[in-house]
Amino acid sequence: MAKIFAMKMTLAEIAKEIGAELHGDGSHVIRGICDWRWVEEGGEDLLTFQTKPLTDKSLMESPVRSVIVPELPDADYRPGKDYLVIKNTRYAFAVIGQIFHPMPRATQTRIHETAVIHETAVIEEPVEIGPYCVIGANARVSKGCVLQSHVYVDVNCVVGEDTVLEPFVSILQGAILGARDYIGTGAKIGVTGFGNAQKDGRFLQTPQIGIVIIEDDVHIGANSCGDRATLGVTHIEEGVRIDNLIQIAHNCRIGAHTGIAALAGIAGSTDIGKHCLVGGQVGFAGHLKVCDGSVIMGQSGVMSSITEPDVYFGRPVKPVKEAHRIAIASTRLPDLLKRVKALEARLDNDS
Amino acid sequence: MAKIFAMKMTLAEIAKEIGAELHGDGSHVIRGICDWRWVEEGGEDLLTFQTKPLTDKSLMESPVRSVIVPELPDADYRPGKDYLVIKNTRYAFAVIGQIFHPMPRATQTRIHETAVIHETAVIEEPVEIGPYCVIGANARVSKGCVLQSHVYVDVNCVVGEDTVLEPFVSILQGAILGARDYIGTGAKIGVTGFGNAQKDGRFLQTPQIGIVIIEDDVHIGANSCGDRATLGVTHIEEGVRIDNLIQIAHNCRIGAHTGIAALAGIAGSTDIGKHCLVGGQVGFAGHLKVCDGSVIMGQSGVMSSITEPDVYFGRPVKPVKEAHRIAIASTRLPDLLKRVKALEARLDNDS
Amino acid sequence: MAKIFAMKMTLAEIAKEIGAELHGDGSHVIRGICDWRWVEEGGEDLLTFQTKPLTDKSLMESPVRSVIVPELPDADYRPGKDYLVIKNTRYAFAVIGQIFHPMPRATQTRIHETAVIHETAVIEEPVEIGPYCVIGANARVSKGCVLQSHVYVDVNCVVGEDTVLEPFVSILQGAILGARDYIGTGAKIGVTGFGNAQKDGRFLQTPQIGIVIIEDDVHIGANSCGDRATLGVTHIEEGVRIDNLIQIAHNCRIGAHTGIAALAGIAGSTDIGKHCLVGGQVGFAGHLKVCDGSVIMGQSGVMSSITEPDVYFGRPVKPVKEAHRIAIASTRLPDLLKRVKALEARLDNDS
Repeated sequence: MAKIFAMKMTLAEIAKEIGAELHGDGSHVIRGICDWRWVEEGGEDLLTFQTKPLTDKSLMESPVRSVIVPELPDADYRPGKDYLVIKNTRYAFAVIGQIFHPMPRATQTRIHETAVIHETAVIEEPVEIGPYCVIGANARVSKGCVLQSHVYVDVNCVVGEDTVLEPFVSILQGAILGARDYIGTGAKIGVTGFGNAQKDGRFLQTPQIGIVIIEDDVHIGANSCGDRATLGVTHIEEGVRIDNLIQIAHNCRIGAHTGIAALAGIAGSTDIGKHCLVGGQVGFAGHLKVCDGSVIMGQSGVMSSITEPDVYFGRPVKPVKEAHRIAIASTRLPDLLKRVKALEARLDNDS
Repeated sequence: MAKIFAMKMTLAEIAKEIGAELHGDGSHVIRGICDWRWVEEGGEDLLTFQTKPLTDKSLMESPVRSVIVPELPDADYRPGKDYLVIKNTRYAFAVIGQIFHPMPRATQTRIHETAVIHETAVIEEPVEIGPYCVIGANARVSKGCVLQSHVYVDVNCVVGEDTVLEPFVSILQGAILGARDYIGTGAKIGVTGFGNAQKDGRFLQTPQIGIVIIEDDVHIGANSCGDRATLGVTHIEEGVRIDNLIQIAHNCRIGAHTGIAALAGIAGSTDIGKHCLVGGQVGFAGHLKVCDGSVIMGQSGVMSSITEPDVYFGRPVKPVKEAHRIAIASTRLPDLLKRVKALEARLDNDS
Repeated sequence: MAKIFAMKMTLAEIAKEIGAELHGDGSHVIRGICDWRWVEEGGEDLLTFQTKPLTDKSLMESPVRSVIVPELPDADYRPGKDYLVIKNTRYAFAVIGQIFHPMPRATQTRIHETAVIHETAVIEEPVEIGPYCVIGANARVSKGCVLQSHVYVDVNCVVGEDTVLEPFVSILQGAILGARDYIGTGAKIGVTGFGNAQKDGRFLQTPQIGIVIIEDDVHIGANSCGDRATLGVTHIEEGVRIDNLIQIAHNCRIGAHTGIAALAGIAGSTDIGKHCLVGGQVGFAGHLKVCDGSVIMGQSGVMSSITEPDVYFGRPVKPVKEAHRIAIASTRLPDLLKRVKALEARLDNDS
């Protein structure tokens, strides 16, 4: 993979940017970031990071010279490397990473000749619209947007500034996206919800005429689905992170700065608070309310509302300590059956 | 979102259509449906519904004047609103919703100039085929169909009358769709099944040369997958509802009027009866038979055949009452361990 | 579905090819394979297979004359059929199936006029590139490849020889595919991983600048997702089988000849060994190591590393015998509670 290192910064500039303490040569020029475990030669002008103490021999032996390291008592800053010392190394590395590899954003207008854009659609400039995109009547694509290729933006939809839509994304039925959203390849926003009235054992589709609103700085992963509301709004608030292959049903609300891992499913009208973390394959029943700051561990099942912020696990979820206590106790269950049988026998013998 | 209210009906006409008892002005004209909780002003000509008793103060205060309400003893039909009283309000609302927002259906022929249609394909009229659709040799698209955009219909496939295919749908390898089916964006029908013979620890793909047959009035959700049969037919019967992100493996049969919620997975050759309801993230092992009328709650695991219609839950599934009894009992397990230990100590002391 | 039977072989040739013992007419010509349960008439020139003993009356009555059957003591080879006797019938049938229905492979160059191919991309011949494919700068598509339609191959990506990409596949961000890979419709390779640094309760995307490498003979199912590494490589080794709707997160490694069933999810940096089998809806936490030859049954949760090859089940996983013992014991839990209560009462009465 050809990398282009157009960007360069000195270590002193980087230290200032992230607020790190520098042990080493501030004038040294950095042209890219890397994981030192994948660099076998060169690497003089790359920056890496390490979350653990500096005891990793292979890091010391790697050709990468500059490394972001955590604040640690008695750290041994050996010569031959430059160290940027900071508490949250992962965050610092992401900040520098965003400088060297910023999110895509249109800075000049390039609309591919194959794009099919309705005459009533509003396309602000600068914008990049790749091959085989289709943009419907009265839709709006705001300035700075990048529609990579094969993107479908339906009638009346709005895409906010600097938002990226990867290939095979559908934005449907009047969905409204914010600024700096990133919608991964194959994700579908504004999908027809699973709304079925029933009579005499047959389903009748309840019209799904609401919309999806996605606020600013939201990321939606590949092949995930967000259903539009039956009548009102499915609402994804600012800063939310949705991983791949996730189902968000009609009329849900996902509170600001909540993160949800892959293959989770959220049934209709459930309201998840702000700053929650949801593990992979978690399922939520419909019409629940999950309070701000809740953490739900992977594969759990949330079957009733959560009113206290805590770490939850299990099916149905319980506070994680209780869930683990039960899980451990259940491994002793076959033995317990024998012990109770023995007790019964002893009592029977006694009497 | 610009709404177009081309349709209008009087309350008396609506009451007649759904078989409701009208308390109010039958000549009042309705031009659309709504959720009253999302209407802050206007709403004089909108119809809403309420499943609960009429004690909701905000409904009474909302500007929406006409409301479908359930039959209730001693209901207090306060003035200022028009009431349509009926037992199954949800179904009645869906019926009216279908009138105001019918499923898309081609009434005139519009084939986008970019559609790539093989010369041997049969395209009945009227039909709507949007941009960047590809239709293969010997395929048939029946009258009334709407292929929105970027739809791939493979060689030999058949799409029945008035069926809708949303963007990025694949209909593969001779799949046969019925009339009035609705295939959501990104759904894949006729996919290569996971059929792997093994020898000396290596896989060999078993040819998957069967097909998928989907009967009439089936809805398949966004990004769901239906594998074609290894040799025969994967069969989805009439009226089935499949939510988003669902996996239906090769040679399965889904019985008529069964509904399956998001992220469920059905392994190969499993046969699910008619009028079943399957919750989200449920998994079925392969080669099972699930009888008509079974209800499987979300996240359950069905590992053997089900022969009695009932409500099931758990992993493996049990009748729900039993499953709940076990779930509740398991929360007492850590305490039970202590109690048994205490009993043992008492007996040891006694002897 | 019109079938074309261009291929023909005699039973003697087939017997030699798969190493079977022939009971019947070696000169009889076979033109196709089938499942006998789906053949109501004709079938004289079709070959079927049966994994069970020859007691199935309907097989005997079916019009299909030639059948691969397992080696069984005292097998009753009744007249009217030709029998190919072999131990692993399923594998033998797959071998013959691959002859009659080989994987697609370009033998002459057909590039659709609508394909958008960057001038710096390298396209080897022969190759088939269908309508509405987009191939980016510096990408390479090797000889023998089939890109069916609507395929997106990003800048710098490499697709190895004889590899098939079905409609709506994305190959992103420098991903490298091997030879004879088969990427199912809607699968996304090289997806942006779920890498989020956090500060003050807000997420910051960690740049995902690594790649995905897929070795030879790998199959990826429809709508599955493989994230590129944060900085290094997400690595899928040779012969791996990935079913539909599977999530493989950044920096994972899937060992050679491992098979993973639908809706499984593998969190970041987890390393799964060679020759493993993973059931549907299984979840793996991140940063684990699963040893070669492990079998994980469906819906299990792998929360810590696995160091011994065995069959595992449960959440968290345990060796399957232990998991089943616990599952069975847990069904007796409500009863156990009563028994312990009774014991306590008896002791209280005694004392």
